[in-house]
Amino acid sequence: MRLMRIGAAGRERPVVRVDADHYVDVSDRFGDYDAAFFASGGIAEARALAAERVAAGAVSAFGGVRIGAPIARPHQILCVGLNYADHAAETGQAVPAEPILFTKAPNTLIGPYDDVRIPRGSSRTDWEVELGIVVGTRASYLDSDEQARAAIAGYVLVNDVSEREFQNDRGGQWVKGKSAETFNPAGPWLATPDEIGDVRALSLWLDVDGVRRQDGTTATMIFDPVYLVRYISQFMVLEPGDLINTGTPPGVGLGMTPPTYLVPGNVLRLGISGLGEQRQTVVGPR
Amino acid sequence: MRLMRIGAAGRERPVVRVDADHYVDVSDRFGDYDAAFFASGGIAEARALAAERVAAGAVSAFGGVRIGAPIARPHQILCVGLNYADHAAETGQAVPAEPILFTKAPNTLIGPYDDVRIPRGSSRTDWEVELGIVVGTRASYLDSDEQARAAIAGYVLVNDVSEREFQNDRGGQWVKGKSAETFNPAGPWLATPDEIGDVRALSLWLDVDGVRRQDGTTATMIFDPVYLVRYISQFMVLEPGDLINTGTPPGVGLGMTPPTYLVPGNVLRLGISGLGEQRQTVVGPR
Repeated sequence: MRLMRIGAAGRERPVVRVDADHYVDVSDRFGDYDAAFFASGGIAEARALAAERVAAGAVSAFGGVRIGAPIARPHQILCVGLNYADHAAETGQAVPAEPILFTKAPNTLIGPYDDVRIPRGSSRTDWEVELGIVVGTRASYLDSDEQARAAIAGYVLVNDVSEREFQNDRGGQWVKGKSAETFNPAGPWLATPDEIGDVRALSLWLDVDGVRRQDGTTATMIFDPVYLVRYISQFMVLEPGDLINTGTPPGVGLGMTPPTYLVPGNVLRLGISGLGEQRQTVVGPR
Repeated sequence: MRLMRIGAAGRERPVVRVDADHYVDVSDRFGDYDAAFFASGGIAEARALAAERVAAGAVSAFGGVRIGAPIARPHQILCVGLNYADHAAETGQAVPAEPILFTKAPNTLIGPYDDVRIPRGSSRTDWEVELGIVVGTRASYLDSDEQARAAIAGYVLVNDVSEREFQNDRGGQWVKGKSAETFNPAGPWLATPDEIGDVRALSLWLDVDGVRRQDGTTATMIFDPVYLVRYISQFMVLEPGDLINTGTPPGVGLGMTPPTYLVPGNVLRLGISGLGEQRQTVVGPR
């Protein structure tokens, strides 16, 4: 099942994707894809409801509707740093012995085709295609991989947009360079795990103005999604609907020679196999 | 005005404090002290409503009711690191040139008298009395101190409980050591700025088992609340109801010789002038 949210920003309604052109509206049953939805078994209920409605022919066309992020604003957006060995190398840092965790402000979440805005004072706004995990249950001290697997509602494509000066040269804690508005495009859909096959064998790619900059595979992740969910649950309580960005493969602007960053007018396209594609236009500061 | 939330954990209702024994219930008018409350001018409305009800004698006694955190779970809990020069010295770190920002999980928020739980695997759980700022408006790129002052709804006493190994020795990003459940006692009340006089002249103190460990003043803060709100708004959008922990004065366990950390059975008492007192019993891991 592929969950989507459509409509104007801040007023999205939950739907289930049928195919590239069609969806089933489930907004009469669910207020949103939020903590309450995931905590109350909404995934299974949405699956049954969508099947029933497809069988009854109650299917709509997307037309030109705006696509939002596929989940409501989460309690936390957690991020894993340097989780691809070759990306760690390109940024000049050691492969971490255990996951590096940081956060970005939850209000960075936007839709997959919305504009990405360069923050004021920025000269080093960078891109990062990533596999995102959506947490499905309240999760604390998970003590087996089975528990961790059961705590994953699904996966989503994200762009973990980053300002490298703010991240690295303004005090050392990364949140400052990860949290500007528009810095977390997500979607177009949340895919339940059964939709994507082996989560350790997904292709990830990102183009800037049509030039391929990132071209990786989750096969080179250091810590996989099940490991990450179990690990993070030892340090904090994960909430249903939380988003975990699992790190980026090589090819970010910081790693280029010379380093190359985004400017207004750039067009980003990115994708992960089974999770769809995004397209963002980069715009200047407000 | 002093805002409080009372009742069982997760089902608190908003009230206005009258004195140590009495409150005015405003839960018929406001669902909670949350983003919607602050964004819609709730502070002014609550002030008028409370005055009206006090005049009418509609006042209740606290009795033995549980006191919760004075705000609903915020969009973010932001923290400022090393914001007292003498605390930076005791931890062996340089005085920062600009505020160091990090976050803690919003679900760490608990009431001022709730138990503090040592996380599994912890041997270095530490205390930090802090002045908390509650943000009153959506705030982005504030360009004057006046704007920043107007974006502050009030102040609250917080204990920024920290696990030093998780914070400092497990990858370098501090959120991992700041986010265990129960790690952010707050309250007993939110005081509007008019209640506390000069925010740069407040006493802060913390006792462990009756022994004074922290005894400071906001006069030695490096970056004051107005500066912090204006500064943070350059990097991210602050939301109404967000909580900013502004850093701790000297006297944490990490700074003692030898370093001394919390064990089950310890009793923490802490306070800030005008913001009341907290008392927590330390309990062992779940």
